[in-house]
Amino acid sequence: MTIDKQTRFLIVGLGLMGGSYARGLTQKGYHVDAIVNDEKSSEFALRHEIVHECPTFVDEELVKKADVLIFALYPHTFIEWVEKNGSLIKKGAIITDVTGVKGCIVEKVQSVLPEGVEFISAHPMAGREVYGVENSDEKMFYGANYIVVPTERNTENGIECCKRIAEILGFGRIVELSPKEHDDLIGFVSQLTHCIAVSLMTCYENENLEKYTADSFRDLTRIANINEVLWSELFFLNRDSLLRQMELFESHFRKLYESLKNGDRETMIQMMKESTERRKLFDK
Amino acid sequence: MTIDKQTRFLIVGLGLMGGSYARGLTQKGYHVDAIVNDEKSSEFALRHEIVHECPTFVDEELVKKADVLIFALYPHTFIEWVEKNGSLIKKGAIITDVTGVKGCIVEKVQSVLPEGVEFISAHPMAGREVYGVENSDEKMFYGANYIVVPTERNTENGIECCKRIAEILGFGRIVELSPKEHDDLIGFVSQLTHCIAVSLMTCYENENLEKYTADSFRDLTRIANINEVLWSELFFLNRDSLLRQMELFESHFRKLYESLKNGDRETMIQMMKESTERRKLFDK
Repeated sequence: MTIDKQTRFLIVGLGLMGGSYARGLTQKGYHVDAIVNDEKSSEFALRHEIVHECPTFVDEELVKKADVLIFALYPHTFIEWVEKNGSLIKKGAIITDVTGVKGCIVEKVQSVLPEGVEFISAHPMAGREVYGVENSDEKMFYGANYIVVPTERNTENGIECCKRIAEILGFGRIVELSPKEHDDLIGFVSQLTHCIAVSLMTCYENENLEKYTADSFRDLTRIANINEVLWSELFFLNRDSLLRQMELFESHFRKLYESLKNGDRETMIQMMKESTERRKLFDK
Repeated sequence: MTIDKQTRFLIVGLGLMGGSYARGLTQKGYHVDAIVNDEKSSEFALRHEIVHECPTFVDEELVKKADVLIFALYPHTFIEWVEKNGSLIKKGAIITDVTGVKGCIVEKVQSVLPEGVEFISAHPMAGREVYGVENSDEKMFYGANYIVVPTERNTENGIECCKRIAEILGFGRIVELSPKEHDDLIGFVSQLTHCIAVSLMTCYENENLEKYTADSFRDLTRIANINEVLWSELFFLNRDSLLRQMELFESHFRKLYESLKNGDRETMIQMMKESTERRKLFDK
C-alpha cells in the first residue's frame, strides 16, 4: 500500500494527540475521519473542519473503509478496542498508534488483529500539559523526534507507511527501536523525568514558591503538571524498566550527595564536568 | 543617598552577570565604570560602549569616586577583594552583589567594610548557560525575580537603593528574605535542581540520547551544562541546607519508587495529583 491523496485515514480517539494528527493530515489535504467517545469533541472537530466524519460510536462502515487507522487511546482501551472491533478492519489496512509504552502493547495487538492487517507501532515524542481536541495543535510535531517500533511481524511496506505519516506531519528525526529498546529508553528520558518532576513538586509545601524561582525550577517542574490516570498506567506498564532507571538515577544522586557531605569537591567537579560535556551534545 | 543620573556605578567583575548589569544601566543613561581582570573583557566592554572606563587593575581613583559598587565575583574572590580594598570605598557609598549564597557572605562583608559604607546584598534570579561579558544580555533580567537580603545592619535607604537598581534593570517581582531564608530556598529551587540535572545527565552513557528525547528531558537537563568551579563553591558554601534539601527530595522520590514497586497505584496517583495542583500555581 502507498499513502496518497486517495488514502482514507481513521483516527480512533480524538484528544490532544489524535486531534493534532487529524489537524496535520487534514491541513495537508488528506481525508480524515475520527471516532470519539463524546459529543463535545465531535462537535468541536466538525465545526473546526478537522475531520470529515466524527461519530461517537464505532461506525462499522467507517472502520471498514479506512486504509490507515491511527489509535490515540489509553493503552488498555486500545487493546480492548482492537479485541472487540479488530475484525472489522479491512485486509491490507495499516494500523499505527501513539502509545507511550510498547512491550506490553505491540505483540498483543499484532496477535489479535485479523490476517492481512498490519500493526506498525509508533511513538511521537511530543506533548503538551493540556488535554483534549480543543488544545490540539499540529505544530507540536514540527521537528520533534518520532520513534517507529517494528517487530518481526512487520513488513518493509508497513514501516515505510508509518514513517511517511511522520514526514507528512513534519516530524524531525525518525528512528527505529525494538519494543524493549524503546521501553528502556522511554523509562529513562520520559518516565524518569516525570518521576523527578513529581517528586520535586510534592516535597516542598510553600505556596509562595513561584515568587522566588528562576527558570531552572520552572523548567524542571513543567511536566509536574501530569495526567495522573494516563501516566500511572504507563508507569505500571513499564514497571521493571522504570524501577531500574529510578535506581540508576538515585545512585548518581547519592554519589553527588556523598561528595558534598564528605567534602569531596574533586568528585563533585568531575560529575559536573561530565554532565556539561554530555549535555553539550544536545545543543550541537 | 538617592540613585539618579549623577550616580556613578562601579561594577567589579564583568562576566555574564556583571556585563548584563553594565549593559542595562548604561542603556538607561547611567554612568557605569568597571574593574575586570583580563584585557579581552576590558576591550570588549569599551568597544561596545557598555562602560566608560574599564581598567584591569584596582584603580583607586575609580573606586573612591563610586557611589554604588556592584560586585559580580565568585564568593571567595568577593570577600578577598573587600578585605583588601574595602578601605578605599567612600563614606556614604552603597555596595551590592549578585552572589548565589548569602549566609557565609553577607555578615562577613558587612563586618569588614569601613564605617559609613553599607552593603545590601541581592540575588538576581536569572542566568544563562554561557559565560563572559561577550554573552551578557540585559534582557535576561526582564520580568525575572530579584531577592533583596537585608540584615539588621541595613538601613531603609540602603534597601530602597538596592530595589531601585532592580527596577532600573527591569526585574519583575522584588522580594525580601533573610540570609537563612534565602539560602534554604535557593538550596531547594536552584541548587537541588542543578544536582538533579547533573545526576540525570551523568547516569546514562548513550551518545545517541538526543535522537530519542522529548522536550521534557531537554528541559530537565538544560542546567546540566554547569560552571563546575562556581557551582561547587556555591554548593559547599550552602552545604548543610543543600544536604537537607537533597534528603527531602530523595525521600519523596523513594516514596514514588516504592509505590511503583509495591503496585500501590493509589499513592502514585495521589502524588501526581498533588504535583499537578502545586505546579498550576506557577502558571497563574
